[in-house]
Amino acid sequence: MEKLKRNERVAALIKILSDNPNKLFGLNYFSEIFGAAKSTVSEDISSARKIVEQMSLGQIETISGASGGVRYRPYVKKDDIILFLDELCERLRNPSRIIPGNFIYASDVIYDPNVSYKIGEIFATYFMNSGAEYVVTIETKGITLAHMTARALNVPLVIIRRENRVTEGSTVSVNYVSGSTKRIQTMFISKRAIPEGKKVLIIDDFMKAGGTAKGIIGLMKEIKVEVVGVGFLMKTTEPKEKLIKDYISLLEVGEVDEQRGRINIYKDMQFS
Amino acid sequence: MEKLKRNERVAALIKILSDNPNKLFGLNYFSEIFGAAKSTVSEDISSARKIVEQMSLGQIETISGASGGVRYRPYVKKDDIILFLDELCERLRNPSRIIPGNFIYASDVIYDPNVSYKIGEIFATYFMNSGAEYVVTIETKGITLAHMTARALNVPLVIIRRENRVTEGSTVSVNYVSGSTKRIQTMFISKRAIPEGKKVLIIDDFMKAGGTAKGIIGLMKEIKVEVVGVGFLMKTTEPKEKLIKDYISLLEVGEVDEQRGRINIYKDMQFS
Repeated sequence: MEKLKRNERVAALIKILSDNPNKLFGLNYFSEIFGAAKSTVSEDISSARKIVEQMSLGQIETISGASGGVRYRPYVKKDDIILFLDELCERLRNPSRIIPGNFIYASDVIYDPNVSYKIGEIFATYFMNSGAEYVVTIETKGITLAHMTARALNVPLVIIRRENRVTEGSTVSVNYVSGSTKRIQTMFISKRAIPEGKKVLIIDDFMKAGGTAKGIIGLMKEIKVEVVGVGFLMKTTEPKEKLIKDYISLLEVGEVDEQRGRINIYKDMQFS
Repeated sequence: MEKLKRNERVAALIKILSDNPNKLFGLNYFSEIFGAAKSTVSEDISSARKIVEQMSLGQIETISGASGGVRYRPYVKKDDIILFLDELCERLRNPSRIIPGNFIYASDVIYDPNVSYKIGEIFATYFMNSGAEYVVTIETKGITLAHMTARALNVPLVIIRRENRVTEGSTVSVNYVSGSTKRIQTMFISKRAIPEGKKVLIIDDFMKAGGTAKGIIGLMKEIKVEVVGVGFLMKTTEPKEKLIKDYISLLEVGEVDEQRGRINIYKDMQFS
């Protein structure tokens, strides 16, 4: 391959690092693919860091020492989070989304890869220093958000099942009462999914009373892993008393008025 | 903001474009954020294209005319696909993955964001010119792969449900016979999910006889949308006669020998 010039190396460096968020690359790696001295790569990294920070496109960090290197960390500024959540509320507030029974049709938004990608970066920004080694969710609607959060944090995703599936191998289960349906249900996790003692971040799309989330926390206790954070895209205003505490929610859903065609949905207070 | 230098603009351009695969940006957008003339931006785009192609990091395309602009297209070279699939087979071939009943535990691999990201880019490379306007999958195990494919193609993701959920609103359903369980099951799609006449790409993790895939194709016919492609991560060698044709599969799973602790899994012939 033709040798790259300085500006070309910097651009390639940014592309490779940001394609692999939170992955630590040794300087040797770039020395080799660029055919350049480590001191040259160090200068390239400085330039890359400057560009990324100036354009608010995340952070490039260098870690010194034998096991050190360079990594890209997604980081969404508070102003950008606010702008994004405002647009999201606007989109979700459309009265045509009201489903009989005062539900909101939101699958198209939650599954939109541009939305899930951004929400993943926002959760990653929030939980960057939580020490999470896994992101855990329960099928189905939280999967896209948890998946992009796992990607931004560069940790594995684990999906809890609502039915026992043969392809999961041996499973551990807990019973829980879903706040929405009031029925006793069971959730299952593969025994192979997460080793004992690991730290996990729970991500889901929606919380009403918190019965499902409480179930997930119970299941994590059962398999002896530590919950270091819980994040939802949306929570409902009612009931005020949730079954869990220590969580964040990006949006809050108040009354859905089918008669007047009005959906009350807002950013969480911390983003106001 | 301090004005960026040429090399800094090129790097920022690559970062923004590749964060938004297949999204068309007008030259005005970059003119504005860089505070630079359109002719300057055009030169920056030429440099960016050269770097991305030289490093095999995808393609940057310019589209001329009033509605034109510039976009990044993920593109994985055949050599890189082969390398990646070889590593994947190696990982899946581990005898500890055998589950009684000759199944393979693969959830950790399929849900690994680094794996799903790459598979998404591979499917996007393959179906780049299919005209797909939506990516469709069925819960649960295919979701991460379909999600990253949708992201790489910059189209919405749609998830077919195995149970009728109130949050989906009115649904359309079809019955199907799953090849694995031989039971009659039902799948549901929200009536709001895909407008009539659209083109869809079906992505799933696994095909045995093809009963589920045939069900999805039937459901697409029911809601009057056109299937322009079908992609699986894995198919089984047996049964040889599948219930559908016109699909691609990246891997093929032969015999799983529980006794000898041997999993036969290979790249599809087209990648040999």
